[in-house]
Amino acid sequence: YKRNFGKMNENINKCYKVALDAMGGDFAPKNEIDGAIEAYKNKASDIDFEIIFIGDENKIKSYISQVQTAGLKYSIVNASEVITMHDDPLTAFKTKKNSSLYKGVELHSKGEADVFLSAGNTGAMLTTSTMLLGRIKGVSRPTIGTFMPTITKTPCFLLDVGATIDMRARFLYEFAIMGSIYVSQVLHKSNPSVGLLNIGEEASKGTEEILETHKLLSSSNLNFLGNVEGRDILAGTADVVVCDGYTGNIVLKFAESFTTILKAKIKDFASRGLFNKLSVALMVPTLKKILADFDYQEYGGVPLLGVNGAVIIGHGKSTPKAIKNMIYRGIEIVKRDVNKQIETALNSPNN
Amino acid sequence: YKRNFGKMNENINKCYKVALDAMGGDFAPKNEIDGAIEAYKNKASDIDFEIIFIGDENKIKSYISQVQTAGLKYSIVNASEVITMHDDPLTAFKTKKNSSLYKGVELHSKGEADVFLSAGNTGAMLTTSTMLLGRIKGVSRPTIGTFMPTITKTPCFLLDVGATIDMRARFLYEFAIMGSIYVSQVLHKSNPSVGLLNIGEEASKGTEEILETHKLLSSSNLNFLGNVEGRDILAGTADVVVCDGYTGNIVLKFAESFTTILKAKIKDFASRGLFNKLSVALMVPTLKKILADFDYQEYGGVPLLGVNGAVIIGHGKSTPKAIKNMIYRGIEIVKRDVNKQIETALNSPNN
Repeated sequence: YKRNFGKMNENINKCYKVALDAMGGDFAPKNEIDGAIEAYKNKASDIDFEIIFIGDENKIKSYISQVQTAGLKYSIVNASEVITMHDDPLTAFKTKKNSSLYKGVELHSKGEADVFLSAGNTGAMLTTSTMLLGRIKGVSRPTIGTFMPTITKTPCFLLDVGATIDMRARFLYEFAIMGSIYVSQVLHKSNPSVGLLNIGEEASKGTEEILETHKLLSSSNLNFLGNVEGRDILAGTADVVVCDGYTGNIVLKFAESFTTILKAKIKDFASRGLFNKLSVALMVPTLKKILADFDYQEYGGVPLLGVNGAVIIGHGKSTPKAIKNMIYRGIEIVKRDVNKQIETALNSPNN
Repeated sequence: YKRNFGKMNENINKCYKVALDAMGGDFAPKNEIDGAIEAYKNKASDIDFEIIFIGDENKIKSYISQVQTAGLKYSIVNASEVITMHDDPLTAFKTKKNSSLYKGVELHSKGEADVFLSAGNTGAMLTTSTMLLGRIKGVSRPTIGTFMPTITKTPCFLLDVGATIDMRARFLYEFAIMGSIYVSQVLHKSNPSVGLLNIGEEASKGTEEILETHKLLSSSNLNFLGNVEGRDILAGTADVVVCDGYTGNIVLKFAESFTTILKAKIKDFASRGLFNKLSVALMVPTLKKILADFDYQEYGGVPLLGVNGAVIIGHGKSTPKAIKNMIYRGIEIVKRDVNKQIETALNSPNN
């Protein structure tokens, strides 16, 4: 534990310092700045924060001069380099120390920011954060979790989705604990249910590592439901679903592609004749309403759990709304002492 | 090789013997019998087949007496037991030797049927077929592949989807060869492209087993595209996508749940007010047309590849249309000598 996140009631009047990579997303710095302003305008009255925009000072200033910042407290830290989506994470970490991403994590690691957010290169976020912040005591591997929409009122928190690809029982077990704490704090849901992603419900199913994970979870204090299957994610069977990062990453990218494919199919159908075009025009508004819950912007990015810090990774396409929600989410991690709880849970005698 | 499947031109006037588990699906024996009749009515003129219905003779006869068999050639083999979805595969194999599933595989293994089809318990199909038929020479593990719809005109053949859950390079490599041969023969597409399911496109990504698989595939004669990601399945980037059975099973069940969830969401939306109900009524016919390619019935079941036989496993909910397509698919496997090609490929010096 490098920094003291404090207890919840000590943080009531705290002004959170949110470091925001202003060069991260595909529409940077526009969406980042717009998102910060939106977050300020819509914030709860008991939350206060200031933004540290990190990136090309001229570009940031130029865009800010065109908009109404409406009272947002902010500062700018200049960064001359940008880590792109094509940069190799380890090489970027070693060579781009003047990048907005590196500088942001560094600021956070020095305690000059409480939170760091970026819609940039996920691999670079993972590598740089793990290297500079270090892991929480008791955590073997960091993990990235994501909220998936479900048919129920609450989303399903799926982890790992790509941080740790080796399927090892101890890793999956720790993910379950971290995921459970994150969901309880961020969705304000006590004792969230946990499912182990598997090819069948029976405890006898799965690889050796999965069988071992099942044992570990069964004897834990978690609200463990047992195995869940691929269909249980969207069905909302469990609040938290645990798997290795290889599988989770594939499921996540597969899920994200579904709406893309649906849009392309609709467009193609509409292009084949006037009647089709009219039918689609009639259909789309209804379909949009129905699929509103499948809006990934709501969850505003994915947390990197297990590192000594509050790090949120946004989608490259993050909209201002997504950036806004990333800011709230990041503050919540600090405010709710998520990391302290993870440390306590992983270092308790029965874990 | 236990049986001689013959060369393609020897089979031109052959009457294929298709053993069909009449008790397999959720609507047995109705859908099985209706499906067989539909298959007969719609068959290509150069294909001839007869059906061996296996199951409760009284039930089968009773249903057949109510329908027009329209010239379908068939016989009935009585089986007094049924393997249900809840039966453990290995226990069922050992104890239910009078089940329609066991008797069907046995008939096939004795050469009294060219093909065996069942919409019953997948695990029991896998276990019983592997035990009674044996593996093709050179095959380490059997595999089940499934066609996934894509945005392009051709589907993507994803394998393994649950037969072999351990991620081993040699297994994945053999799946790639079997998948490539199956797609080339069944979709009549020469040199199908093969992708390795991974968390990124770069050859350096993935677990040790994935890296090793990448090497094996790169030096093979296959049309190997390299790594593909979760989003590439529906995008149709590759004709064949290879992964371990754990991951494939989860992706498949996740994919199948999407339409279920979509339907539930639409129903829920329609229930909230008359205007919503009308909007949905206007939308659904268009949406159905757009999603027509996502109709799993078209592909009519999944092949069990790697065993010494032609075995197709249907979904429990198989409709007559799905059963019809399972019959055609099974005959095609024999007619096109898929197993002989697999044997040749896996026993050639450079594999």
